[in-house]
Amino acid sequence: MKPVTLKQIAEHLNISVTTVSKALKDYPDVSKKTKSLVKEYASILNYRPNTFAVNLRTKESKTIGLIIPEIVHHFFSSVIKGIISQAEKKGYLVIILQSNESYELEKKQVDLLMSQRVDGILISLANGTADFSHLTDVIDQEKPLVMFDKIAKLVRCSKVVINDIQAAYAATQHLIDTGCKRIAHFRGPLLPQNSIDRFLGYKKALQDNNMQYDPSLVYICECSDESFEEGKKNAIQLLKDHQDVDGIFINTDLVAVGAISEFNKLGIKIPEQIAIVGFSNWFMSSAITPSLTTVDQPGFEMGKVAFKCLYKEIKASKKNKSFVPKTIELKTDLIKRDSTK
Amino acid sequence: MKPVTLKQIAEHLNISVTTVSKALKDYPDVSKKTKSLVKEYASILNYRPNTFAVNLRTKESKTIGLIIPEIVHHFFSSVIKGIISQAEKKGYLVIILQSNESYELEKKQVDLLMSQRVDGILISLANGTADFSHLTDVIDQEKPLVMFDKIAKLVRCSKVVINDIQAAYAATQHLIDTGCKRIAHFRGPLLPQNSIDRFLGYKKALQDNNMQYDPSLVYICECSDESFEEGKKNAIQLLKDHQDVDGIFINTDLVAVGAISEFNKLGIKIPEQIAIVGFSNWFMSSAITPSLTTVDQPGFEMGKVAFKCLYKEIKASKKNKSFVPKTIELKTDLIKRDSTK
Repeated sequence: MKPVTLKQIAEHLNISVTTVSKALKDYPDVSKKTKSLVKEYASILNYRPNTFAVNLRTKESKTIGLIIPEIVHHFFSSVIKGIISQAEKKGYLVIILQSNESYELEKKQVDLLMSQRVDGILISLANGTADFSHLTDVIDQEKPLVMFDKIAKLVRCSKVVINDIQAAYAATQHLIDTGCKRIAHFRGPLLPQNSIDRFLGYKKALQDNNMQYDPSLVYICECSDESFEEGKKNAIQLLKDHQDVDGIFINTDLVAVGAISEFNKLGIKIPEQIAIVGFSNWFMSSAITPSLTTVDQPGFEMGKVAFKCLYKEIKASKKNKSFVPKTIELKTDLIKRDSTK
Repeated sequence: MKPVTLKQIAEHLNISVTTVSKALKDYPDVSKKTKSLVKEYASILNYRPNTFAVNLRTKESKTIGLIIPEIVHHFFSSVIKGIISQAEKKGYLVIILQSNESYELEKKQVDLLMSQRVDGILISLANGTADFSHLTDVIDQEKPLVMFDKIAKLVRCSKVVINDIQAAYAATQHLIDTGCKRIAHFRGPLLPQNSIDRFLGYKKALQDNNMQYDPSLVYICECSDESFEEGKKNAIQLLKDHQDVDGIFINTDLVAVGAISEFNKLGIKIPEQIAIVGFSNWFMSSAITPSLTTVDQPGFEMGKVAFKCLYKEIKASKKNKSFVPKTIELKTDLIKRDSTK
């Protein structure tokens, strides 16, 4: 049974399609009797308005687009959950695309969402994104856009972030406070702002505590699908290069879990010989042995706030009101567990 | 700058909107000169066809809906990734909804997707779903529907599954082959087919090996957000109830990781005192100590196959061809690690 049309209702009741349409929309120039007849019959037939026609009339699709670098990822899947939970409350559906950390793909996906006429776009940038013209295009076309987590500071739109510098500073300070004298850092890739900021927080904590910053103690991870393996590899390299390191601040939990797994295998005692702090508070961080001290990054909350922010802009844009972009900073917490003293 | 309309192009070139529209669609009754003029100007202005109008004409939205029980979930996020990767290749966007294992929510979401006129629906059922009329409604309205993982056997639509009975049988057989004499089972909730089938596979393996099935060795988990805690709780209860158990087959990795964490804490040696097999092969299963022997469930592959299957049905439906539903069974593997002998 194909969807019921206005025409079918009109034919059955022997009235015009226009009258049926008006009756369903409660126009005053249709009699009460006709209205109730039409509505009753429409309800029996399980009639649904044609969304495409409604969209064409209202210029709204009631869908938003979401572009994230990676779906199989504890943090991002928590963000998605937050966004969807909030969007559903407001009657919006969420189209999800994954950029695989690729700038080219991200650009194509922004274009696709614009063609699809979504009402707004939420995005966390790919590690590979250094050119932002695809995003300024969205803003130029007055389409509401909100960035979260991995953002471009210079693009003029609302942003939902954490203070990565402060959080990384607190993580490193905790290693110092618990007696670490020589602290390494496994950092993320060179481009994304959050990986830069976490590195800066680490560096600043060392400096404020009169500990020398040594670039040879900083190891880079691509933080791709291979994060766990990268953690293992870096752990082995670190042991070769520096026998005196007694603490590591690691850019993300997945890499930290890889490092812990390798240290466990080699019989290195955590935290006695090397203490470790991660970043993100993935679920597994509490499940491994020893459990991982880490920075709790509020993914679900970030998703909720990002949607709320976008929703306000969509409403403002509908009323042709201007909207001043703002940056919302969410609180992080250091979760102390067994991988630090 | 709001999106450019056909009207703006027409006014600029001083021709009718109909001519512009026909020129962009390469109608033969428009001159070559006009066509090239219109196309050039449309390209300069970055004109995009109004999708709502295109949808109304083609009766296609080029979007599909996906309903899953839980997003922050290694298996389901792998499935999403598989679906999106395949959908993008065919030019389809994916709207994702999360039922939170609730029948009521799932029903509402199916309705929402039907109202939005998606071209097809992919669904993995909520644990709470025992009535399937919301799904037979979709089929009655000739909307392509494919179920995966958590399915309803009696609903007449295509399905992508694994053989849960066989996989659970192999998992239990492995415990028997490595010397376990008294094997418990932490099963999933009562309703979903996969949790029933895994239980049946466990039971059949015992029977085929002349080991008595003892209902008191079967513990139920809700497998909700609290799976990890449930694993811990069941582990404690099992130790209280049965001192002689030397193996456990556990319905899902998350519960198994909870149990391992509790046994580690209590000093129970895995696999020497109690051997454990999980189900799903979540990432963390290889990261914990001891690493978990488990059934690898091909999430990414399942997502890809489910989309391909839906795509074929969408194509058939467009051509008004009939389509015979089929059930596709994907292969699983037992991954042997350190939690079994």
